[in-house]
Amino acid sequence: MIAINNRHLNLSKMDRQDSTTIRVALPANPYDIRLAAGGLDTLGQCLSVSELGTKLGQKIAVVSNPEIFALYGDRVLKSLQSAGFETISYCFEPGETHKTFASVQGLFDALLAARFERSSTLLALGGGIVGDMTGFAAATWLRGLNFVQVPTSLLAMVDASVGGKTGVNHPQGKNLIGAFYQPKLVMIDPEVLATLPEREFRAGMAEVIKYGVIWDADLFAQLEAADRLDSIKAIDPAFLLEILGRSTQAKADVVTQDEKEGGLRAILNYGHTIGHALESLTGYRVINHGEAVGLGMVAVARMMVQMDLWDAETEARQLAVIQKAGLPTILPEGVKVDAIVDRLKTDKKVQDGRVRFILSKAIGSAFVTDSVTDAQVAAALETLPV
Amino acid sequence: MIAINNRHLNLSKMDRQDSTTIRVALPANPYDIRLAAGGLDTLGQCLSVSELGTKLGQKIAVVSNPEIFALYGDRVLKSLQSAGFETISYCFEPGETHKTFASVQGLFDALLAARFERSSTLLALGGGIVGDMTGFAAATWLRGLNFVQVPTSLLAMVDASVGGKTGVNHPQGKNLIGAFYQPKLVMIDPEVLATLPEREFRAGMAEVIKYGVIWDADLFAQLEAADRLDSIKAIDPAFLLEILGRSTQAKADVVTQDEKEGGLRAILNYGHTIGHALESLTGYRVINHGEAVGLGMVAVARMMVQMDLWDAETEARQLAVIQKAGLPTILPEGVKVDAIVDRLKTDKKVQDGRVRFILSKAIGSAFVTDSVTDAQVAAALETLPV
Repeated sequence: MIAINNRHLNLSKMDRQDSTTIRVALPANPYDIRLAAGGLDTLGQCLSVSELGTKLGQKIAVVSNPEIFALYGDRVLKSLQSAGFETISYCFEPGETHKTFASVQGLFDALLAARFERSSTLLALGGGIVGDMTGFAAATWLRGLNFVQVPTSLLAMVDASVGGKTGVNHPQGKNLIGAFYQPKLVMIDPEVLATLPEREFRAGMAEVIKYGVIWDADLFAQLEAADRLDSIKAIDPAFLLEILGRSTQAKADVVTQDEKEGGLRAILNYGHTIGHALESLTGYRVINHGEAVGLGMVAVARMMVQMDLWDAETEARQLAVIQKAGLPTILPEGVKVDAIVDRLKTDKKVQDGRVRFILSKAIGSAFVTDSVTDAQVAAALETLPV
Repeated sequence: MIAINNRHLNLSKMDRQDSTTIRVALPANPYDIRLAAGGLDTLGQCLSVSELGTKLGQKIAVVSNPEIFALYGDRVLKSLQSAGFETISYCFEPGETHKTFASVQGLFDALLAARFERSSTLLALGGGIVGDMTGFAAATWLRGLNFVQVPTSLLAMVDASVGGKTGVNHPQGKNLIGAFYQPKLVMIDPEVLATLPEREFRAGMAEVIKYGVIWDADLFAQLEAADRLDSIKAIDPAFLLEILGRSTQAKADVVTQDEKEGGLRAILNYGHTIGHALESLTGYRVINHGEAVGLGMVAVARMMVQMDLWDAETEARQLAVIQKAGLPTILPEGVKVDAIVDRLKTDKKVQDGRVRFILSKAIGSAFVTDSVTDAQVAAALETLPV
C-alpha cells in the first residue's frame, strides 16, 4: 500500500477524511455514489448491512482485468475479507475486442463453479469495459445478482459507472446487447487515477467538458479557468475532487429524471452521435471513446454555429477547453464525410429512421432534436480541419 | 382461417364477444392480460396507441417456432399489418436444446438486418420456450425493446407469459441466464389450445392445480368437481375460460406483490424444487416441466403429511386431482433418492446454501421455508411409489 501511495504524486496531499456522497434517487433502485480518497480500503465496511442498508449475501466476486487487478486487487479483496465476505476474483481479457458475450460466459462459468446465488454480489474493479460487462453479467446471471461499481478510469468514474447502462458489443456495433441495471453502490477513489495512462485521463476529460456544456455552466467556467486539464499530474487534488463531484452529480441528476433514456437522458449523448460514427468507422482502434466524443463536440459546435444556435465565440470557448485537455480536434485521417453521415443511420438511438442530435442554445443547457438533416451534418463536417 | 376453426371442436362454441382483462398493476411497468377467444385476430388493434395507451414504433417482429408459425403466423401478421405495423417474422429451432444464447443471437442478427430500434416490438407467438427467449432478446437488444406475449400452450398461458421472467439455458441448468422484463401486453386466445398436443395440455394443468393449492381454494374445488381434466376435448369452453382467468389472476396477484422474487413470489415454486431436480436428472427428455411439477407436488404432499402440516385426506385430494389431469405420480425409472437430494443444492433459489421449499398448511395457501432437512426430503421420497 505504501508503494502505491508513493506513486500518487500530489494526490498524496488528498485529505483521506474528505469524502462526498451523492445520492442517485431512483424510485425503485436508489443508491449512493461515494467519492473518497482511499475508498478502496473501506469497501468491506461500506458493503456491510449497517452502512449499505441492504444485506448482501456472503459471496462477492471481484471482477477486473489483469493490469488493474495487479495494482488494486489485493487491497479490495483484503477489505472485503476483513468485513467477513467470502471472495473470488475473475479477470476478463483486456480491451474492447473482448467485450463480448463469450467473455461474459467465462465469468458465468466461474460463478457457477463457486455456486453464486441471487444474493451474491459482483464487484466491478476497472474501467468502462469491465464495468459494462460485469454489470451485464450481474443483470443476467440467475436473472440478477447484486452489483457494485468501483471505477478506476476517469471515464468510468464520471460516466460509465453511474446510470445503470451495462452491455457487451455485437460484431456490428458497440453495446448493442445489454440491459439497464443499477448498482447497489458506486465507490470512486480518485487516488487510483495516479496509475491511469495519460491518454485515458484526457479521454475522460472529454466527458467532464460535456457535463459543463450540457448541464453545469459553473463547471465549464472552472474548466476554462484551469491552467491545465491534460494530465493528472498537473491537476490540483481539490480541483480533481470538484470535477468528479460535479460530473457525477450532473449524471445522477439526469439519470434520476430519466432512468431508461425516454427523454432527458438523451442529452448525455452530446457529441456522441458523430463520436460513435467516428469510432465505428475507424474500427475502434485509431481514436478512443473520449477522443471521439471530443471530436463529436467540435463537429456539433460547428453545426450549431451554422444553425445560429451558438455564436462563434461560444464555439471558440468550447474548442479552447477541448484543446487544453489535450484532445484531438482534427478528424482522423481517411475518414470521409459521406461515410460519417451514412454511419449515423445505424446508431442505437435512431428513431423511426431519424437520427437524434443533442444541441445547445447556451453553455450549461442542451436539448434533443431529430430534425437535423444529412445536408446540415455534412456541411458542418466539410468545414472542419482535416 | 376456416380450416383452423373447424379443428376447434367444442371450442367453436366459445362466444367471441366474451373477453376478460386482468390488470397486472406493477408500479413501473403495468400491463394487461387479455383473455379472448379469437384474440389473435385483434392483435393489431390491441397494440394501437388508442387501445394500448403507449405508442409502439412501426416495426414488429413475430417470433415463433416453425410449427406454431405455420398454424397461426399468417393470422397474426395480417392483423398487425391491417393496423399499419411493418412486420418481420423469425422462427427459433423448436425444443429445449435450442433455448440458448446462440439461438437468441440469430434473432439479434435478424433485428439488426431489419434495423430494429428501441421503440420496435418483439411479439412472442408460442409456448414457454419461445416466450422466454423472445423476452430475453427484448430485454437485452439495444438494452430493451417493447415486448408482447401471445402464449399458445396452456403452460405458457397460465405461467410463463405472466410475470416477466425471461431467459435461456446454460449447459449446467435451465434459465440460468435471464432477466426480469415485463411485456406491454399478454394476449391469451384459448382457441389455439385446440392444436396443442394433449400431453402438453396435461402439463399445463399441473400449474393450474398448483394455483388451486397455493392461492385459490375455489379453483381447487372446481378442479375437484370437474369430470375430466386430462384433455382439451373433454373440457367445457366456459370452464376453460374460468380456469385460465383464475390461474392468470393468481399469478398476477402474486407477481404484483413481489415483482423480483424477493419473498411471496417464491410460493409459485410449489412443487418446483423437486420438480426441477427431476427434470435435470432425467436430462429434460423423460418428463416435461408440468409432469415434473406434478411429481414435485406429490412428493411435497408426502413430506407435509410426515411433518403434520397436511392430513392424509388433503394429500389424497391433491393426488386425485393430479391423477384426473392424467399426470404421472410415480418417480421416473432409475432416479435415485440420493441423487435428487444432491441435485436440489444447485437450484437457482438456494440461499446461503439452504434449499428453499414451498409448503402449505391448507389448500389455498402456502409459505416458504428453508428449514427442511435433507433427511426429511429423503424420507418423503423413499415412501413414494416407484
